[in-house]
This record gives sequence, C-alpha cells and structure tokens, in this order.
Amino acid sequence: MTAITTTDPATGVVSATGIEETTTARVAEITAEAASAFAELRTTSRAWRAGLLRALADGLEHDRAHLVATAAAETGLPATPRLDGELTRSAFQLRLFAEAIEEGGYLEAIIDHAGDTPMGPGPDVRRMLVPIGPVAVFGASNFPFAFSVAGGDTASALAAGSPVVAKAHSSHPLTSQASFDALNGAATAYGAPRGTIGIVFGQRAGAELVADPRIAAVGFTGSLSTGRILLDIIGERERPIPFYGELSSLNPLIVTAGAVGARGEAITAGLFASFTASAGQLCTKPGIAFVPRSAGALVDAVVARAVDAAPQALLNERIHDAFGTIRGRLIEEGRAESLVAPRVGDDGFSLSPAVLAIDAADVTAAVAEEAFGPLLVIARYDDVSEVAAALAAVPDSLTATVHAEPEEWDALAPLVASLEDMAGRVVFNGYPTGVRVSWGQHHGGPWPATNTAHTSVGVTAIRRFLRPIAWQDAPETLLPEELRDGYTGVPRRVDGVLTLARLAR
Amino acid sequence: MTAITTTDPATGVVSATGIEETTTARVAEITAEAASAFAELRTTSRAWRAGLLRALADGLEHDRAHLVATAAAETGLPATPRLDGELTRSAFQLRLFAEAIEEGGYLEAIIDHAGDTPMGPGPDVRRMLVPIGPVAVFGASNFPFAFSVAGGDTASALAAGSPVVAKAHSSHPLTSQASFDALNGAATAYGAPRGTIGIVFGQRAGAELVADPRIAAVGFTGSLSTGRILLDIIGERERPIPFYGELSSLNPLIVTAGAVGARGEAITAGLFASFTASAGQLCTKPGIAFVPRSAGALVDAVVARAVDAAPQALLNERIHDAFGTIRGRLIEEGRAESLVAPRVGDDGFSLSPAVLAIDAADVTAAVAEEAFGPLLVIARYDDVSEVAAALAAVPDSLTATVHAEPEEWDALAPLVASLEDMAGRVVFNGYPTGVRVSWGQHHGGPWPATNTAHTSVGVTAIRRFLRPIAWQDAPETLLPEELRDGYTGVPRRVDGVLTLARLAR
Repeated sequence: MTAITTTDPATGVVSATGIEETTTARVAEITAEAASAFAELRTTSRAWRAGLLRALADGLEHDRAHLVATAAAETGLPATPRLDGELTRSAFQLRLFAEAIEEGGYLEAIIDHAGDTPMGPGPDVRRMLVPIGPVAVFGASNFPFAFSVAGGDTASALAAGSPVVAKAHSSHPLTSQASFDALNGAATAYGAPRGTIGIVFGQRAGAELVADPRIAAVGFTGSLSTGRILLDIIGERERPIPFYGELSSLNPLIVTAGAVGARGEAITAGLFASFTASAGQLCTKPGIAFVPRSAGALVDAVVARAVDAAPQALLNERIHDAFGTIRGRLIEEGRAESLVAPRVGDDGFSLSPAVLAIDAADVTAAVAEEAFGPLLVIARYDDVSEVAAALAAVPDSLTATVHAEPEEWDALAPLVASLEDMAGRVVFNGYPTGVRVSWGQHHGGPWPATNTAHTSVGVTAIRRFLRPIAWQDAPETLLPEELRDGYTGVPRRVDGVLTLARLAR
Repeated sequence: MTAITTTDPATGVVSATGIEETTTARVAEITAEAASAFAELRTTSRAWRAGLLRALADGLEHDRAHLVATAAAETGLPATPRLDGELTRSAFQLRLFAEAIEEGGYLEAIIDHAGDTPMGPGPDVRRMLVPIGPVAVFGASNFPFAFSVAGGDTASALAAGSPVVAKAHSSHPLTSQASFDALNGAATAYGAPRGTIGIVFGQRAGAELVADPRIAAVGFTGSLSTGRILLDIIGERERPIPFYGELSSLNPLIVTAGAVGARGEAITAGLFASFTASAGQLCTKPGIAFVPRSAGALVDAVVARAVDAAPQALLNERIHDAFGTIRGRLIEEGRAESLVAPRVGDDGFSLSPAVLAIDAADVTAAVAEEAFGPLLVIARYDDVSEVAAALAAVPDSLTATVHAEPEEWDALAPLVASLEDMAGRVVFNGYPTGVRVSWGQHHGGPWPATNTAHTSVGVTAIRRFLRPIAWQDAPETLLPEELRDGYTGVPRRVDGVLTLARLAR
C-alpha cells in the first residue's frame, strides 16, 4: 500500500494524511457501487435530484470552516476571500443546477406525433435526454472546490442523474477527502443510494478508473499532457467513452490606444490583478497582453506593481518548477525580454510576478506557451493589424479579451471575429478571470482549450453527461412522464413548435 | 493518376467513370476553397441559409430522373419506390432543416444580464451556437442519397453554416458526382460562395481530407473498421477534431408470446420485410429476433418467405463476400443452425435471404455479429427472462424493438429499461427500418452504434457542427443579432427564463 501525503506549499513541508492509495480491488468495488447507484438514480424524479443537489450545497456550507481551512493549508491560496468565495461558488452551482433540472429545458424534450410525411405515414417519435451513467471526475489543483470533488463536473453529472467517482487531486488529498465526506454525508442523509458519490486516491487508481467498463464518461480539468494520457487509456478501452477535458489556455488580451488613453490606470490595475490573482494559477489568466508601443506608461505601471508585489505560494513543486522552466524557454526560444524577474520566497513554492516583453511581430508559438503562475508577456504593437497577425501564433483559448473605446468597435470588428474563432468566450472591456456561473456561460474553446464543443461551467455543462433516446410508438406508461401527452411541466417541442411549461415550477 | 471505376452490382461489370482520383494538391485546393467559403457563410443570415437549403432541395428534385437512374445502376437498389423515395427524403430533410434554422431554437440562445450573484457582481454573458467550420462528409454505400453527398450530414453542416467537402463513395462514384453537380449547381445559382460544397474521390484523398488542418469536423457513416482508421488519422492531427461516426448495429427485436398470439401473421410479414428491405442493407435492419419457442408457426412462415424470395443484388463485392464469411462464422463459432441458406443469383452480387436459428441461452458475442445483408438470426426462448440475459451478449445498437400486447407492458418494463440502455431508439410494435426524419428523431446509440451522444438523423443532427461562444459585456453592434436585447425572432433563455419568439417567422 502506498501512503498518500500532502504538502504545504507555503513551507514545502510534507505530511502524512492517513489515506492509502486506493487498491485495484477497491476501485472495482467503488465503480460497481456507482453502477448500482445508477440503476436507482436514473429512476429518480427531477424534483428528487434537485433536492439532492440542494442537500449537497447545504452539506458543503455546513462544513465550510473545516473545508476552507483544509484547502488553505494544502493549496496556499488565501482562505478569504479566495477559498471561501470558491466554496460559495460550488454551493451556488449546485443550487443553480437544481433550478435548471426543475425547469426541465435541459431535457430537450421533443414530441413528433404520428402523421403523414412526403415519404408516407410517420410513426410517433419522442426524444429526450437521459443520464449517461457513472462519471469519473478529475479535478484541478487550482480550484480545490469549484473544479474538484465538489465542483462543476460533479454537479453536472449528478444533475443529469449520473453517479460520480472522483479522483482525489494529489495536491489537495485532504480537501478532496473532506469534500467527499461533506457531500457523501449529505447524500446519505438525503437518502441517495450508496455509490452516488465515490472517491479514489492515487495515480494508478485514477488510470484504472478511466479504464473501468462501468465508467461511462470522464470530466477532466488539468494539463494537456495528463489529458493525453487519459485519452490514450480511453483509446484502449473496448468501448470508448466521452472525455470532456479542459486542458490549456493562454487567453490573449488586447488593449487599444483608445482604451489606454481613456482609462490606462484602470486597465493597469485590472490587468495586474487578473494575471496575478491566485498567483496566476487560473485557467483564464491572461498570459499575453497586446498593448500599443505608445503605452509605455501603462507597461511601466504594470512593472512597478510587479516589482512591489510579495511572493505568493504556488500550488505545488511541479508548478513552481515548471514556471521557471517555461519562463526560461520564453526568454531563450521565444526571445522575450525580461522586464521583471520573479523573486523566490523564503519558504515553500513562493514566487513574485514576472513580466516579459516582446514585439508583436516576434510572437511565435515559442513565446505563446502557457506558464501556469504569475507571468505576463506584454506584446507591443504599432498598428492593430500586427495583433491580428500575431494571434495566428497563439493557440486557441478559453477566452480572448479586448479593451477598446466605443468609437473603435467598428474598425475592430474583423479582429473581434478572429477572437471568436479562437476562443470560447470573448470579453469586452473586462477581464477573463472570475468566470460567472450562469445559464449562458461557456467555459470551453477550440483545441487545446478543450477537446469538445462543450462547457465545464454553466448550466449547459449538464449536457455532457446525458445522451438522447427516441421512443417510437411507445405505450404511454412506458414513456418518461415528461414525454407523455398531458404533461405540461417542462418546455417541449411538439410537432416542431416550442411550447413553454404551463405549470408553476 | 488513378482512374475511378464503377461496378454494376447486378452484373458485376466494371466500367470507367472518366473521373480521376483527386490529387493531393487538389484536395488542398478544395479545403482551402471550403475555408474561404466558411469566412463568408458564417456571416450569412439564417434566412439566407434556409433559402440555400431549399434551393439545394429543388436542385436535387430537378435532377431526380438522372440521379435515380444513376444510383440504380450503381447500387442495384430498385429505382422505385426505394431510390426515388430516398431522393424525396433527402430533399425533405433539406427543407425541414430550413424550417429549423428559420425557427432558430437550434441556436440555444441564452442571455444572462449583468447582476448581483452570491459571488459578487456578475457581468453580462450571452451565449449562442456558431458554425464549427468546414466539415468532411463520408457517406455510406447503402443510402446513395440520404447518407451520402446529398444526405443528412451535408444538410446538417450547411444548416449550421459550415461548408462541406464530401468524400465520394467508391460504390457509387457517379451518383456522388451527379449529386455534387446538382447541389453545387443549385448553390452557385443561389449565390453561395465557391467552396460551399466540394467533393473528393479516392481513398487516399479521403485520408488527406481528414488530416487537413482546415477541416473542423467529420461526419461518417460506414463500417467500424473504416471508422477506426479515420479516428486514428484524427488522433495524429496536431489539432484533434470531432468525429461523428455511425458504425455498426445489430438491432435486436423481441416478440412476446402475446404478440404472436394476437398478430403472428402481421409480424411475420413485417419482420420479413424489415430484414430483407434493400437486401438487408439498412443500418437499422433487425439482425436478431427473439421469438417464443412456441411460435413455430411464425418461424416456419418466415422461413417459407425466405425460401420463396428471389435473390437481390448486394451493393458491392465486399459486402457480398463478407455476408458469406459472417454467415459461416455465425454457424461455426456462434453455433447457429441454418434454417434457410442463401441462394446466389446468376449474375453480379445477388443473394436470397438467409435465416439462422439458435437458443436464446446460446446467444454469445460470436452469434451477435452484424451481417450486412438479408440475414436474420432467430433466437428461441421459453421465458422472457432468457431474453434479458441474452441481450447482455448483444452489442449496443441504433435501435431495439419489442412487440407485445397491452396487458404485457407492465411486466416488460424492466426489459424495456434494458433496451433503453443499449439503444438510441426503442421501437414498440413496429420495425426499426424506415427511420422517420423529424424534429425528435434520434439515430445514434451507445458504442459501437455511434461514437458520440449525437444523432445523424433529425433536426438535432445540426448540433454536431456547431460550437458555443459566450460574449461577455459585448457592445450590441458586435453581438449576433439573435443575442441583441430587442431581438424577438428566436426562442431564448433570458435570465433563466425560456421565452418564445414573438415575431412571425
């Protein structure tokens, strides 16, 4: 048995957790429990599942103090407002998804009554989305709540009616265990079947989880390299399954001369906060900012803030070391100039922000590598056409941001169109960090941001863990209630016409 | 240059087509034209694209006589009603998708206005689906119109706003060319940009198409083995793309004792027609039928029809040869008993229907192999519990069918639930062949029926060729019109509340 340890990134001190790596036999037991829970969960009503999600939210908030303190010790992220706010977000997400499944639009219910068609008589066809089955969830180091055991993938899968088996993140095993305890305790008290939520520890156990035939889909937030490893495991399964990976994102940000003139100081403050928040370890961190060459004062002000900033602990040694390696590559291979070198803290994995600079014309793939941590590349341009050219070397991203003044938008339309091509979310006069959890949010993007045209944040994330079924000429008693003729509790498309739910929720 | 030939399956005679395999350089030109067309198509209105789809439908019908005659000569399928009906279906599909994009629900438009959230002020977020980019379409041999150049994948992609490059099927190159000519002529006359529809010929050109960086998605209908080859090519791309494959399906059908008693003769006729229609070359053909052991008369009647049936031409030599090989395997490895051996026709690739029998208890993976062609395995059972056990050995399918009487449904509910698990469409007291094209149709299923949770038939097929974008705090002029505040032409979810379109279409 391999013991699982935890490391305090503020000190580098490694401690025992008392948790052992999950054995192969136990992984199989846990997935079997999930499969057995699925047989029950799939028959539960939307109202029951909404209640479950709310109970889970309450359970998280009940354990708030313990969860936040545990995560602060394991991640080095500030307890308040950062981790406290993240827990609030996780609970909010569960409650929002409860509303969404009560409302029922996510079912995409469609009824085509029998009738004549140009090809002859057509049968009665009714379609709806149903849960896909047990989901493996691999969380990220940087969001120990909102993208981990208690995060969006778990909320999405349970909302759909699919059980979850989480792989505990090696950077926050105790937070993972505490989150599992809070969720599992709440689920059990609510009356959810055993196996509704499971957890495994250790890399081997994670690989076995993805290979397990009872697992029907994988939600993953993490590095491109780990994502590729899991995709390879899926490629070797007898039955491939969907892999929803959020992988890598540089998040270009563009500032026009007009914006600098109108609100240069505000942009300085906003940009600095955005690339250094959570020590720059946000998947939507702007990694490259295009600024006019004339905006020397703005660059100087960003540099001054970076010089003044205290080191912040990075999440783990791997991220800390990779930061230095990638920064070195940006300078050597990308030929970026160092404006501010990071200062290393006295203890643990701490670093202060780093700022590099380059000419927009010199932006290549070598300078467009994501450095997880507080690093910003400033790309100077004379004319906005240089930005459009440089963006061709920037990998597609979760987000792209542009700061401009009202009178500039018309001329910028082609640039905005190219940002829509390369990103899942385009931000105007704001910052990509701080992803709003809402009905319409999209957190995804073309490869390598994500590997599918789906989102991991917002209500439509539920779609990932559903699959359609059509029933042809089914007896009414065998149809899900939402597809029966008299039912009016969810929006439906009937014979091509969208109809709203008629009952109060 | 390699010349493309065509074979008459009724005679086996091979003829020149005058078409050459598309060169590597020409494949690159065609995808470049598609990319350039995409830049224009993406800016077109839904009304414009609806007009394009209707023009394409008109174009197909204008060339109906030529198209049907060409396809009849290349496929051996009857010109009427089969191929004529299939052309009608292709045209209907284009017109239905025109209606769907006019209606606009497929955009999944969502608006979240800025507002307070438990995590602080939230920005304005608006989401909508946009076209994914040029789509490669690989059609199937068995539907030279509805699942080929003029088929559902082409209609879906163009409805979405994505150009199409079709790979001509080697079993019907002239039909592919004629379909392309009809569509391309209609598109050009309508004013669509050059490159809206393209076509390539030859296996190497098809592989190059899938590898081409300008191709953003692949729609495929064909064999599991070819699907795997294309998936491998995608795995080697620098940027992976979605592959929507419809691959393989056995389509189990179950008849209860009650159904035999009430309408045995009708079931005999329906089942026979369903497994022999189009010489059994339908992806929804029932390949295995579970019948009560007591239903000897039904089996005898199916056998008698098979004995009397004339040979029908199979689509090509490969299918003809594989049919014999797989039938042999079912007998040797699956230990099925031959009730009727197929008779080979005098010319070409013709065969009469084959019927095999086995005990339900003996159904294994070896007897559950799809034989493309007029072959039915009858699995005899004493109790319906044997069917549930046998289904575990049957691969997941596009469809599953059950024939029963009203008083039996309650007891059959668990069996129906297991059919929902294993199939994308469950058919009651009907036949899986003859897929209705409608808003709610689902033609997909768990692996190996398809490799994604999407459909290739019905309006929701359009979703495959779309991706979401979120706009955060965007100036109104830069938003798609469907996301502007005053717009009322499509259904939208606004601050969580679904609202119907208010304007007449």
